[in-house]
Amino acid sequence: MGETAPEPGALMAAEIAEQPQVWARLLQEGGGAVAGVAAAVRARRPRFVLLVARGTSDHAALYAKYLVEVRLGLPAGLASPSTVTAYGARPDLSDVLLVAVSQSGGSPDLVRYVEVGRQRGATTVAVTNAASSSLAQAAEFSVDVLAGPERAVAATKSYTAQLLALLLLVEGLRGDVPDLRGLPGWGAEVLALEPVVARAAERLRYAQRLVVTGRGYAYPTAREAALKLMETCYVSAHAYSGADLLHGPLAMVDATVPVLAVAPSGTAGEAITPILPRLRETGADVLTVGSEEAALGANAGLVLPDGVPEVASPLLEILPFQLLALHLARLRGGDPDSPRGLRKVTETL
Amino acid sequence: MGETAPEPGALMAAEIAEQPQVWARLLQEGGGAVAGVAAAVRARRPRFVLLVARGTSDHAALYAKYLVEVRLGLPAGLASPSTVTAYGARPDLSDVLLVAVSQSGGSPDLVRYVEVGRQRGATTVAVTNAASSSLAQAAEFSVDVLAGPERAVAATKSYTAQLLALLLLVEGLRGDVPDLRGLPGWGAEVLALEPVVARAAERLRYAQRLVVTGRGYAYPTAREAALKLMETCYVSAHAYSGADLLHGPLAMVDATVPVLAVAPSGTAGEAITPILPRLRETGADVLTVGSEEAALGANAGLVLPDGVPEVASPLLEILPFQLLALHLARLRGGDPDSPRGLRKVTETL
Repeated sequence: MGETAPEPGALMAAEIAEQPQVWARLLQEGGGAVAGVAAAVRARRPRFVLLVARGTSDHAALYAKYLVEVRLGLPAGLASPSTVTAYGARPDLSDVLLVAVSQSGGSPDLVRYVEVGRQRGATTVAVTNAASSSLAQAAEFSVDVLAGPERAVAATKSYTAQLLALLLLVEGLRGDVPDLRGLPGWGAEVLALEPVVARAAERLRYAQRLVVTGRGYAYPTAREAALKLMETCYVSAHAYSGADLLHGPLAMVDATVPVLAVAPSGTAGEAITPILPRLRETGADVLTVGSEEAALGANAGLVLPDGVPEVASPLLEILPFQLLALHLARLRGGDPDSPRGLRKVTETL
Repeated sequence: MGETAPEPGALMAAEIAEQPQVWARLLQEGGGAVAGVAAAVRARRPRFVLLVARGTSDHAALYAKYLVEVRLGLPAGLASPSTVTAYGARPDLSDVLLVAVSQSGGSPDLVRYVEVGRQRGATTVAVTNAASSSLAQAAEFSVDVLAGPERAVAATKSYTAQLLALLLLVEGLRGDVPDLRGLPGWGAEVLALEPVVARAAERLRYAQRLVVTGRGYAYPTAREAALKLMETCYVSAHAYSGADLLHGPLAMVDATVPVLAVAPSGTAGEAITPILPRLRETGADVLTVGSEEAALGANAGLVLPDGVPEVASPLLEILPFQLLALHLARLRGGDPDSPRGLRKVTETL
């Protein structure tokens, strides 16, 4: 007489599927607000950009750091909150744009960092999925990523919504936002490749370790993919930029350690494709997400749609990895909606 | 009649043992030169600091980033070389101090980043172990870490020499260098604990995965410890800041995954000690390197000497991990002097 137990990962699956609609909503209903924040920030003429975040949001912040360096030509850094919260630093942040990224907007250390940053002269922007959160209130400007309530412990839709909001913000600072109306359709195309991902999950079912690699805009994707696989599948997944991988961690790769390479069309893919042969020399099973060319140079590959603006590619690249985490967790008997040891909001001081 | 084969890891062992003399040499013979560079840089009144490095040197750069934020109160970031080398960014770096860190000074992408940074207005400093290297020549100012030729593939003495040179540089920018004359003696004290480390290696001999954690100044130590274990022992070692660990990777920790926590006296240790009980709740074998208090709260711990200035603690913290990598590699039948797949100088473009 009891209820049917939900399928493991049902929440995560629903939120993965929802992403194209989330992006469409943000583009249609949120774009104006982000443009307003961008115009106000641009008037301050920031000369340096700091980003502050934790966990999945830290990967969105890293993506924004690349955008700031490449698209705005400004130096940028990821701030370490402990310098302020533990060491009591009170840095001079005049001429600095400080962007805090958090799904819940509830992390006390980020709130504190933004409060201190604002006192110390920074122009502060909170990018959250909770417009009335402490973080949104602590910052001078606030951007709502409009992902709707996220109930799965593993963040998926809030991550890509953060990427899109940060893209709109940075391109808004340039004053020239590319045409992104195709994104929801491209997202739906990638999600329709779920059967391809399910086969990859079977192939990777018994892997004890995984390496994920990418360069440039695709490096944050590699980082987020590794975290998603770890928190849902308890697999040991290491992420390296293609360049760093050759510096030491390569010793760890062999025929028992599959390498997942994020190799989209454009600069990020061109920077990673040359190292694929060296990875295959180790005997590793090299799987790609990205261009057709990359897939041809690998043991197997999932091909992303053509015609996507390079800066927006990370929104699409992460989708197969979210699906992989879901399918691999199920195959291994786990429930990605209740990973052991995790809470949705993490409080660190 | 052939020569006796050298003991596995003989080069690495010799270079680990050499570190107190390296530090003494840098303090005695190199301190004046670093102070001169610091004075010249201070006159430029930099407002932002960028660091650029790869591999082990990237961990030294991360340590310097914490020092800059805490001790100088300046915003800082780790630059991504691909923004310049792959994407062709030409950021405005006026008022920026750009510090490149490299053992060999031979990585073409770092050289290119420094060349572009210098053209774009940055004050550039190269910190290398090769005073006539391309990187040292590309930068306006150059600091020689005076570690002597490093022959082992796994960097040890060059890493702690970089830490010390960066400490002298940052404290020199403040104009107030702490008394560091005790460092070589403290280093020798820690190295004398090798039998304790050898027992820890036996304990960890069959571990498939390790987690290393630390916060603040001790976080770069955790990162470098994980890299050293991976490149010599092929073990899967993940490094997390104590705060990030609670955000997702905690799901990966259980009784089969030992946690090595860097918990020195002072702020860095105080920031990590509160999370040790939560780590032990997972059943993990928690081992510490740091204070006596941290060791008492763990399953086992190695205690570092008292009285070390907090900023200099990372030089001592890493020593037990270098020894652990050496002993664990030997126990597992490897030769840390010839890790598979690695070259001493890695060229990435």
